[in-house]
Amino acid sequence: MWRQLAPVGRHPDSGGYRRHAWTGADADCRTWFQEQAEARGLHYETDRNGNQWAWLGDPLAGGAVVTGSHLDSVPDGGAFDGPLGVVSSFAALDELRARGAEFTRPLAITNFGDEEGARFGLACVGSRLAAGQLTREAAYELRDGDGITLPQAMEAAGYDPAAIGPDPERLARIDAFVELHVEQGRALDLTGDPVGVASAIWPHGRWRYDFRGEANHAGTTRLVDRRDPMPTYAETVLAARRAAELAGAVATFGKIAVEPNGVNAIPSLVRGWLDSRAADQATLDTVTAAVESAAAEAAARHGVDLTVVRESFTPVVEFDHALRDELGKLLGGRVPVLGTGAGHDAGILSAAVPTAMLFVRNPTGVSHSPAERAEEDDCVAGVRALADVLEGLACR
Amino acid sequence: MWRQLAPVGRHPDSGGYRRHAWTGADADCRTWFQEQAEARGLHYETDRNGNQWAWLGDPLAGGAVVTGSHLDSVPDGGAFDGPLGVVSSFAALDELRARGAEFTRPLAITNFGDEEGARFGLACVGSRLAAGQLTREAAYELRDGDGITLPQAMEAAGYDPAAIGPDPERLARIDAFVELHVEQGRALDLTGDPVGVASAIWPHGRWRYDFRGEANHAGTTRLVDRRDPMPTYAETVLAARRAAELAGAVATFGKIAVEPNGVNAIPSLVRGWLDSRAADQATLDTVTAAVESAAAEAAARHGVDLTVVRESFTPVVEFDHALRDELGKLLGGRVPVLGTGAGHDAGILSAAVPTAMLFVRNPTGVSHSPAERAEEDDCVAGVRALADVLEGLACR
Repeated sequence: MWRQLAPVGRHPDSGGYRRHAWTGADADCRTWFQEQAEARGLHYETDRNGNQWAWLGDPLAGGAVVTGSHLDSVPDGGAFDGPLGVVSSFAALDELRARGAEFTRPLAITNFGDEEGARFGLACVGSRLAAGQLTREAAYELRDGDGITLPQAMEAAGYDPAAIGPDPERLARIDAFVELHVEQGRALDLTGDPVGVASAIWPHGRWRYDFRGEANHAGTTRLVDRRDPMPTYAETVLAARRAAELAGAVATFGKIAVEPNGVNAIPSLVRGWLDSRAADQATLDTVTAAVESAAAEAAARHGVDLTVVRESFTPVVEFDHALRDELGKLLGGRVPVLGTGAGHDAGILSAAVPTAMLFVRNPTGVSHSPAERAEEDDCVAGVRALADVLEGLACR
Repeated sequence: MWRQLAPVGRHPDSGGYRRHAWTGADADCRTWFQEQAEARGLHYETDRNGNQWAWLGDPLAGGAVVTGSHLDSVPDGGAFDGPLGVVSSFAALDELRARGAEFTRPLAITNFGDEEGARFGLACVGSRLAAGQLTREAAYELRDGDGITLPQAMEAAGYDPAAIGPDPERLARIDAFVELHVEQGRALDLTGDPVGVASAIWPHGRWRYDFRGEANHAGTTRLVDRRDPMPTYAETVLAARRAAELAGAVATFGKIAVEPNGVNAIPSLVRGWLDSRAADQATLDTVTAAVESAAAEAAARHGVDLTVVRESFTPVVEFDHALRDELGKLLGGRVPVLGTGAGHDAGILSAAVPTAMLFVRNPTGVSHSPAERAEEDDCVAGVRALADVLEGLACR
């Protein structure tokens, strides 16, 4: 399976994947999914939001167990983030059939569309639409960097954008959704385990910091006469790092926009985006308050105006405790339980369906980069764990 | 004169000027210059590099006294940087004629092309070409942000780019070049003088700092596992500020480029440009060495790779001492003599011609911004001082 999927959407220069929603590379991934489904005699369908489903048993019977992930990627992403969950789902079904497992519930394998949000700027579009967390109207407003709207892109890919919207009947027929994913950190590498179970998705948000000073000549303006927003930005970056270190959280300034952005010009505006996440809401509040107060203090000292806007926020997502405990039991009770700072379709669906996640060890801890990795033995262990879980949930 | 020039190339939103070389706004400024020349019965010509000249007396006689500046602007620049020198030149000629001055040497007023370098990234293109400090081949390689080359832009503006190149015969016919300019700092405001004389242009340079780390997921990568170049950049910005403060110099990070520049991505690359200037070479060396060593230390601590490239450098330009002393005498000996951190056509020409500069007080000290200012009384004092200087040099 991997061999067919490996070259799709891979950029020859970076070695990274560019499988963005509703592009040609995405269509090739979707064709691969349909072929895998049909090769196993599964009933293939797409739902109203373009998510792909491969059914063993009656899709309309209810009480279904569903597993899967996504096939799209961030720009120059790695091979595993998303595809490992889909490939492992098909492999786990093969393993269960080899074991002679008898299914007492319908089982489905899914590929959720546009999980990474690389093209339209919003993550988990397929699952958000299905769960009613993204309205049809708001989805119609999404545009990519070339100004192409989401409905235009879907139509160009052969899907009917008029159909998109919430899908409560479909979700009501699901009793459990399990997503296997490559770990996006080094927790399993540090504990020495190939597979772990997710406890929760950390609360996380994005804040835009606008530091406004006064444009001036970099060669002739005395330091004391400056209202330069760049040192204030720099102090804020370091304050964020310190606050996150103290709290055991993460805080990142990864995006910046500067005006006029000239070598010999003191900037009039430095705009920086803070991404911060922590294990719980109180810790996250502590970090973001510390960053904002350090920024305000530095801004006042440098004669710089500061505005902070929270652009997005997602509260903590606790995965279903009963399902999580059952996964632990099915896996022999010795698997680590870990939180994660990343969003997932499983997190979106958890509002409507009992969901759980399995993580497979990533020895580099690197994510959203071609350096992301999972050893073959660990992938096999992940498939076995997923097969054990699906057997326990769908064959009893 | 001001009334006609004021609206040309003024952006309605910012109130700043966008008079970039060989654009429509630049052409309007050039038409204004030609009209001013012809209205005074001066002989108008453009040289092989597109610089404009308005002659009183025989251009070929030699021993000429030349005054002028430039009419182009930085993006969203102020009204005075450049145009004050050209307007004051015409006004000083009017003043001398009103005084009944008799010229014993040829006098010319000039507008040097593309002084700010806002479009093609290199400052003082017109004077550099004339003085042989920019070769024709290198000038042909210059491109603007849309990929238009300098020769294409000149041709579109009706000039013959095949003619550009050094102009030693023309420069050899000049005995003195005096440029009047609005001050780009607050030295005159602090001394309480409307007009000053330039001593030297500080040595200055641009250094590109490339901080390379590892792209990673901002939500899932523990702080200790990161190789994030942004905190290293931030420490370097603050180190530059401190080093400049200690040395009485200036150091500015005004331009930055980040990859991949995503809100939820730890950057793989932060590229920052340092502009630094000081009164003398030793002081500048102290500042740049301090910044580089602080950057290297922080980079090592964060696991970040650092490369520093000096992209440009201009050694100190001492204006002609004899001419400077003569200006001081002609102005009654009570004018302050001050250095400047900014480059000028007069600095370029000083390699080939005795040059001097007059500065007019700027009460805000602001430069390269619509907030740049000169009071009407000070402008009049500037015109009078320039007239005194020209009378002393060209009428004796």
